[in-house]
Amino acid sequence: MNHGATTSQSLPIVFVNGERAAFDAPAISSRDRGLTLADGLFETMRARRGGVFRLDQHLARLSKGLQVMAIPEPAELRRWVQEAVRQAGEADASIRLTLTRGPGPAGLAPPTDVRPTVVVAVNAMPAFSDETYSIGLRAIVASGRRNAQSPTAGLKTLAYTDAIVTWLEAQRAGADEAIFLDTDGHCSEATASNLFAYREDSLVTPPVTCAALPGITRAAVLELAHAAGIRTAERVFGLDVLASADEVFLTSSLRGIAPVRSLGERTIGTGTAGKVTKRLMTAYLALVDRECGAP
Amino acid sequence: MNHGATTSQSLPIVFVNGERAAFDAPAISSRDRGLTLADGLFETMRARRGGVFRLDQHLARLSKGLQVMAIPEPAELRRWVQEAVRQAGEADASIRLTLTRGPGPAGLAPPTDVRPTVVVAVNAMPAFSDETYSIGLRAIVASGRRNAQSPTAGLKTLAYTDAIVTWLEAQRAGADEAIFLDTDGHCSEATASNLFAYREDSLVTPPVTCAALPGITRAAVLELAHAAGIRTAERVFGLDVLASADEVFLTSSLRGIAPVRSLGERTIGTGTAGKVTKRLMTAYLALVDRECGAP
Repeated sequence: MNHGATTSQSLPIVFVNGERAAFDAPAISSRDRGLTLADGLFETMRARRGGVFRLDQHLARLSKGLQVMAIPEPAELRRWVQEAVRQAGEADASIRLTLTRGPGPAGLAPPTDVRPTVVVAVNAMPAFSDETYSIGLRAIVASGRRNAQSPTAGLKTLAYTDAIVTWLEAQRAGADEAIFLDTDGHCSEATASNLFAYREDSLVTPPVTCAALPGITRAAVLELAHAAGIRTAERVFGLDVLASADEVFLTSSLRGIAPVRSLGERTIGTGTAGKVTKRLMTAYLALVDRECGAP
Repeated sequence: MNHGATTSQSLPIVFVNGERAAFDAPAISSRDRGLTLADGLFETMRARRGGVFRLDQHLARLSKGLQVMAIPEPAELRRWVQEAVRQAGEADASIRLTLTRGPGPAGLAPPTDVRPTVVVAVNAMPAFSDETYSIGLRAIVASGRRNAQSPTAGLKTLAYTDAIVTWLEAQRAGADEAIFLDTDGHCSEATASNLFAYREDSLVTPPVTCAALPGITRAAVLELAHAAGIRTAERVFGLDVLASADEVFLTSSLRGIAPVRSLGERTIGTGTAGKVTKRLMTAYLALVDRECGAP
């Protein structure tokens, strides 16, 4: 018996403004400002056993971004996410919540009557290779830089163009990822992940003033490290710290914690997942299990 | 008799991948990377008497951007623009050509099989007030800055989020426009227009290395000024030059040339359209007429 349970449906599941939409079918106006001007924000979340990891924090971050961008927040956001996850059942999944200012006329001026577009897509979790986690990623230093003085620094806007171009740069260099410096020359983050370095018994990550996103996984890792008695700091640092670190890893909702084994030609630490990294990976998976409801 | 002519249709006219689409109807996949990641580029062009002003230059700039972003260029671009303009008839119009990498899975990695999305929208020309041209715009200095070290600096990508937020900042300040400095503190451009200052008998505009777009109207204005015997320079300059200029104006395909009458509390020159600005406005309108086919 399975009282009240929903048969899980095959992924992806897509909702547009609360209505189920066929995957890949035309669903968005060609004059939606999300498409024409990247006028919107998004969240990427992890679902496990029918629960969403730190949904409150994701919605709070989105809400803050909507305020900065002066986009009205639809009241149904949480309900739409929960309904999509409910239909997806208990499969591990990633959830992408996209919110745009909706359709509008040509030009920058928003329409007087704003009708936001909300897309909730539940996708299968991306399959990362075992090597990603046991050995680690090969990273390069990005040739472009993140803008610490952007008016949307710290917001998860739709403007991922620079991240894509830089991800392609990493691929062409035979690497998996690229690490951005900010416009002041300080370490910032990777193309879609936060950055951590472990060095001299201390775990450091760039502050959001270095154009780093205030990541939900980043915050969870800082908590876990603190609880494990590891010294932590949000601190401005340069490439020298990264290159001489014992361990480096990246964090994101989809990846969790992923070790970095090299930076350009330089090997990081032992060139494989370090022991602090592995300890945090285990603690993070346990945290996700715990908060999303253990079996 | 009107052999071969097409009855002009009411605007807007929208084509998606060469097919006429109903205005505002769902036409784009919710997983189009233009929407989810601003993974694309656009051009805004001016049509007059059935011709497109400097279409070749717009397509060349787009093509260069596509190469940097490694997006394949559909062979039909020019034909699709021309067909949309033909259907629009001889009305003055603005044309927005949007090209994205098309639908893709979650994450930054592009799909292996890229099918770009191309939207051509022909809109009525925006109605600017007479005051915009005869007196001029009130501008502020943007609090955020443009990234001179972005890997997509100089490309007209879909990532206009910072421009929108800054345009809203100008509105809240009771102004019409905002002028960006770049991350090195040099004058860059306005939210969607290039910037010119006339001072000491010389017309200057920031070089593209100051995160300014290589605007098509900007290039036309440099040509026109040169032909009129006005000294011109693409030169790095700071706010001091702008504040002490005799005349300041903005250029874009939709606006043409628009004078700036104030910068924050400071009046520029006489606080109205200056004589060099007016001379160039007249020359520019004549140029558009000439190149698009005089009546």
